[in-house]
Order: sequence, then structure tokens, then C-alpha cells
Amino acid sequence: MIHTEIMEVETRGEVDILDLTQDVESVVSNSKIREGICHVFVQGSTAAITTVEYEPGLLKDIPAALERLFPKGINYEHHRTWHDGNGHSHVRASFLKQSITVPVVGGKLALGTWQQIVLVELDIRPRRRKVYVQVMGE
Amino acid sequence: MIHTEIMEVETRGEVDILDLTQDVESVVSNSKIREGICHVFVQGSTAAITTVEYEPGLLKDIPAALERLFPKGINYEHHRTWHDGNGHSHVRASFLKQSITVPVVGGKLALGTWQQIVLVELDIRPRRRKVYVQVMGE
Amino acid sequence: MIHTEIMEVETRGEVDILDLTQDVESVVSNSKIREGICHVFVQGSTAAITTVEYEPGLLKDIPAALERLFPKGINYEHHRTWHDGNGHSHVRASFLKQSITVPVVGGKLALGTWQQIVLVELDIRPRRRKVYVQVMGE
Repeated sequence: MIHTEIMEVETRGEVDILDLTQDVESVVSNSKIREGICHVFVQGSTAAITTVEYEPGLLKDIPAALERLFPKGINYEHHRTWHDGNGHSHVRASFLKQSITVPVVGGKLALGTWQQIVLVELDIRPRRRKVYVQVMGE
Repeated sequence: MIHTEIMEVETRGEVDILDLTQDVESVVSNSKIREGICHVFVQGSTAAITTVEYEPGLLKDIPAALERLFPKGINYEHHRTWHDGNGHSHVRASFLKQSITVPVVGGKLALGTWQQIVLVELDIRPRRRKVYVQVMGE
Repeated sequence: MIHTEIMEVETRGEVDILDLTQDVESVVSNSKIREGICHVFVQGSTAAITTVEYEPGLLKDIPAALERLFPKGINYEHHRTWHDGNGHSHVRASFLKQSITVPVVGGKLALGTWQQIVLVELDIRPRRRKVYVQVMGE
């Protein structure tokens, strides 16, 4: 059995981190699936899905790590193709990737207490993002 | 069809890397599923699941890369929230993520000979970890 | 329902990035599955699967980021085990991982227009790679 819902979320700009956990929990609940997997995927090449403890400190530490590892100010060849200044966004997204899978047990996501599902906006401007939430199982 | 088993594993402290391959193979075998996927997920926001060739050199190289990319000694805002000194653990976990999926073909994991499934403890102390192993297919 | 196909692809050497999107689309089409997930996995510990906008600039930016984060020239303990000079390949592969999952909706992959599925060769020589494409759903 498979249950798919597509959500649209608005991001506020670069390195905005949105907590999707409650929305994903609702989809799991709607699916009536008790045991299986939940797959969360954001469409596009300049956003990512991961997990993090959703607290104000880490919402600064994750962007700081992205800037340290993939600085905005260095040269990106992507710029030569499109001149849109978001080469770093693409590279960051290829490393963080666009989806995660979480077990569903007893009709609930098997997340830890301090483990939230988040969308990370990596593009340099606010975007409207399409998030696919899929629950498979019985 | 879906088969889920939950394992508890003890880690020995920061950047301990445990080979879970045989345990996961046993779950695949228990499931009687011949063709499908196997999803391995660790609960929590300071641990990760990935693959590596499990040999002594890489068990040092992975921690060295983590320290180079996400140094323990720099400032993390997470520290202001909880004062527990594991900001770097959380950031590392958000980048490495908590799960992998491996094909099951002919009742076996489709891993390479030198490709093992590992849990990476990223927290700063030994932890008891809950690992979900899920086999879906026919 | 599950449909699995195994493809063999030849890579041209270190940090070769191959666009697999059309091949994966064909497998989805062959499967006749309308709604579900598509899992793409490369066997081995020195290759990765991710997504990227497949244009010439980013095909240089991704290798540049890999070299910045996991330089080829520094010491890797892996070298002491095998003397094969690809310690950096293994570490890169553990961070990028070997698979991605993409939703299938209406019989098609739910990718963005500028979001392609790619295999990244991380080993230091051309390799023949086995890629598993699995479609699950109804």
C-alpha cells in the first residue's frame, strides 16, 4: 500500500530551515499505515531534506557549516552557464541531497525526541517548494 | 510485505564506527523476502548510518575527515541552548544523515565485497542506540 | 509490487559524473508502476549516487568541492592497509553515499527540470559499475 501527499511550502530565503515534522506526521496519520517507511523528498536542485534538533543554536550552526565548507564567495563554474550566482547552492544540495526515509512503527514516525525533519532552502532567494511525502507499508 | 526488527547497540564513545552488516543480513534472512529494499535507520540526532570498507585505516580516516570539516573546538551556537558540548555532533549528523537503503536481490543485500553498513557514533559519550532494520518486497 | 533492473555503466576515471536520468526513467516506464518510489543504488565503496543540474559548470564545481573537502594529497591511513592510493575516494563515498530515492507519480520520476540523477565515480581509475534501479509501488 502506498499513500502520497504533495505539500507546498514557502521559504524565506537562503539557508532558511523549516520544520516539517508535524506535517509529515499528519500524512502518516492520514495514510492509516501502521508499519512501513515514510519518504520525504523536495523537488529541485537547490534545496535539501535532512534531520536536526530544531533549536535556535543549530539553526545558526548548520548555515555556518555550509558557508565554511561551500563558501558563497569563491568561484563556481556554474556561474558561467547561467550567471545566476547560486553555484554554491547547487553544490551544497548535491552533498546534502533531497530526501530522507524514516521508519513508521505503530502508525508513528520512529524519530528521536530531538530529531526533526527539516527542509533546508539553499537557493539565494525565497522559493515555493514542492515536498512529496510518501508512506508505504501495511 | 514488510518485516521490521529493532536492534539495540552499545557504542564506545565519540566517532566509534560499528559494522552492522552481519546483523542486517540476518534480518534480511529472517524476512524471507527475496527481492526488495532494506532500510537501516538509527534513531537520534547525533549518530549516522553510512557504508565504508571496514578496515583499520578508514576507521581513522573518517574521524579525521569529520574533525577537519566540523572541528570540535570551534564555536557552536547549540552550546548556548544546552551547554552539553556536542554542537559539532549534531551538525555532523545532519550532513551524514541517519539512514541508508540497500537493494535485496536473491534474498541477499546487494553490497560490494568491500562495502559494509556502519553506524557512526557522533555524540561525545557512549550511547545505547536503537537501529531499525526494515525489509520491504516480495 | 517491485521491479528491479541492474545496469552496467563504464566510467572514465576519477570524478567522472554520469547522467543516469534517462536510463532510470526507462526502468520506471518498464515497471508499469504509476505511484511509488524509485531507488537507485551503485554497488561499491568508491562511487556515489546523487542529483545535480547536469551542466558543464557544475561538473567542474562538484569535483572542486570534493578536492577542497577531502584532498587527494593529504595522508590517509587507508593507504597503509592496501597501498592503492584511493583513501580519499573511500572517505568521499562514505559522505556522499551510494543511493537516492525519488518519488514516482503518474508513472514518472518527480524530479525538477534541472535535477538529474548522477553517478559520481570517486575511484582513481575507470571502473565498470553495477547500478540497481528498483521501482516499488502500484
